[in-house]
Amino acid sequence: MATVINKQVLLRDYVTGFANESDLVITSTNVDLRVPKGSMTALVKNLYLSCDPYMRNRMRKPDPLSPATAQSFTPGMPISGLGVSKVIDSGHPDYREGDLLWGAVGWEEYSVITPIPNLHFKIHHTNFPLSYYTGLLGMPGMTAYVGFYEICAPKKGETVFVSAASGAVGQLVGQFAKMMGCYVVGSAGSKEKVDLLKNKFGFDDAFNYKEEHNLVAALKRCFPQGIDIYFENVGGKMLDAVILNMRPHGRIAACGMISQYNLQNPEGVYGLSLITYKRIRIEGFNCFDYFHKYSEFLEFVVPYVREGKITYVEDVAEGLESAPAALVGLFHGKNVGKQLVVVSRDLE
Amino acid sequence: MATVINKQVLLRDYVTGFANESDLVITSTNVDLRVPKGSMTALVKNLYLSCDPYMRNRMRKPDPLSPATAQSFTPGMPISGLGVSKVIDSGHPDYREGDLLWGAVGWEEYSVITPIPNLHFKIHHTNFPLSYYTGLLGMPGMTAYVGFYEICAPKKGETVFVSAASGAVGQLVGQFAKMMGCYVVGSAGSKEKVDLLKNKFGFDDAFNYKEEHNLVAALKRCFPQGIDIYFENVGGKMLDAVILNMRPHGRIAACGMISQYNLQNPEGVYGLSLITYKRIRIEGFNCFDYFHKYSEFLEFVVPYVREGKITYVEDVAEGLESAPAALVGLFHGKNVGKQLVVVSRDLE
Repeated sequence: MATVINKQVLLRDYVTGFANESDLVITSTNVDLRVPKGSMTALVKNLYLSCDPYMRNRMRKPDPLSPATAQSFTPGMPISGLGVSKVIDSGHPDYREGDLLWGAVGWEEYSVITPIPNLHFKIHHTNFPLSYYTGLLGMPGMTAYVGFYEICAPKKGETVFVSAASGAVGQLVGQFAKMMGCYVVGSAGSKEKVDLLKNKFGFDDAFNYKEEHNLVAALKRCFPQGIDIYFENVGGKMLDAVILNMRPHGRIAACGMISQYNLQNPEGVYGLSLITYKRIRIEGFNCFDYFHKYSEFLEFVVPYVREGKITYVEDVAEGLESAPAALVGLFHGKNVGKQLVVVSRDLE
Repeated sequence: MATVINKQVLLRDYVTGFANESDLVITSTNVDLRVPKGSMTALVKNLYLSCDPYMRNRMRKPDPLSPATAQSFTPGMPISGLGVSKVIDSGHPDYREGDLLWGAVGWEEYSVITPIPNLHFKIHHTNFPLSYYTGLLGMPGMTAYVGFYEICAPKKGETVFVSAASGAVGQLVGQFAKMMGCYVVGSAGSKEKVDLLKNKFGFDDAFNYKEEHNLVAALKRCFPQGIDIYFENVGGKMLDAVILNMRPHGRIAACGMISQYNLQNPEGVYGLSLITYKRIRIEGFNCFDYFHKYSEFLEFVVPYVREGKITYVEDVAEGLESAPAALVGLFHGKNVGKQLVVVSRDLE
């Protein structure tokens, strides 16, 4: 049983325009479940994989002028991302057989990893669903935490707008903002999601951006006095409409711009000269710059999760074969809540 | 001599597209040189008027969705701006005949003002040219000071790009950045201005943006390792080219976007999704939020000016009749250095 079959998801070739399921290929190879002694690597069994919008940028041909956060995937090789795994064998002194961890792994059943601080984290709160470490208790959770509390610098009573608000990050930003005493409105792409925002996550209001022919007017309706804080997940036309509705000294946390990632020619943003008159701050950030605060984040969020004051909705795809559709579905807004893939629920 | 003729510059009508000289009209009225006792107003004789790019936005029809920093001018009425004046008569206890001040006045020979803290300032350093209070020692100086030191958060050794670099603000930002030990490059619109940047203001490099068919490549040539700080005065295509050349954790101080003010349809900025990957901060600001620091600024800058370590170039138009051409000329880059209008050099 030292060598087993390892199913993998490969990138067929660099992608331009909208990503398709066919850009990803399921294949199989063999993997040795033992790690050479003293190799500092670990052989992990992947349990859950995280589907994240930034991964679209890793499908592009590398462009030195338009760098992505992480390197482009290599065509013909397994793609990678964040996931929850169990250690099967380890040459690394800090990891042993049976340890659970989350962090960077390949999109495959088994990965050989070299654990790196702030890129691989041991899981200690095993009384939560392990899948939460792809979302609420993992990178999206940290993103919502640092993006809202650090970048947005919120104050009680301020008005907060969140786009892609039912997604992995947005649903948390909305709940954090409500906890702080802000007035919170979210946008999403279906009635089901809008209902979630209002009825499950406690947003004060929400709208389906696909049903609004005038986003400027929709925001004006929701924020007659203007927007203090915009948690930006989508970019493009929505960003322009928000800038027109921002209040003086407003803040925009640029978490991501998913509406642009699959466009060959990105949309223009036309209203930027308003940021001078309104003294708006737009700030891009990446939670990986803040992982020294990960334990602080867990101390903050875990009690709320335990008490049911923070809730989290996941969209779960079953099996590695479903991974290509799950990832590509993100860019069409098919997911309701955090999209993840179950590779295995078998902890043995 | 209680009533004299008062020449004025009126706005003919709201302006769309490029402002023309003919949008401004010279007219005359009468003014009483005495102020009613106890009126809290002052009657001032205007000496120098400041031509500033933001004034273009005050020529637009008011638009609640696209507010300008200051109210739109009223068609048929004198326009206003910042200037240097001498008090002729005053009902305000803090101002007396003979006082020199700078601040908000009408574009006319004599103005009745109600002095307002942080909008009107007494002039104490009369051993400098009084015109400096339209530039170096006035609003543009404060703008450069807070924009560079507060918004850009510069560090020694960083790379700094300044657009409209020979203008009222840009020439100071470049000199401040050199004093801090930064590598500084400026763009401007003529060979004469580029020479000024390199030979008078001490920029490390400079280019004429009108002679570069590819701004992205021009910036790449000047900053092979990328830009840490962009002091933004122009907007549009230049901003897009800069974003492509920014380094991680770069900062953009959005002081103004003069290239956009006369366009009926502003240019789009297409590369904004890069600000997430690069963790760029773009921040609009207005020096009027910082005038509690004005005396701090003067304490900082006056010794440098005295020692000749900071220099300042002005473009001086003679007489109120020349004011419309001087103001409109800004938008065609006709000015070399700070554009101002001499209304009177007669201090009596």
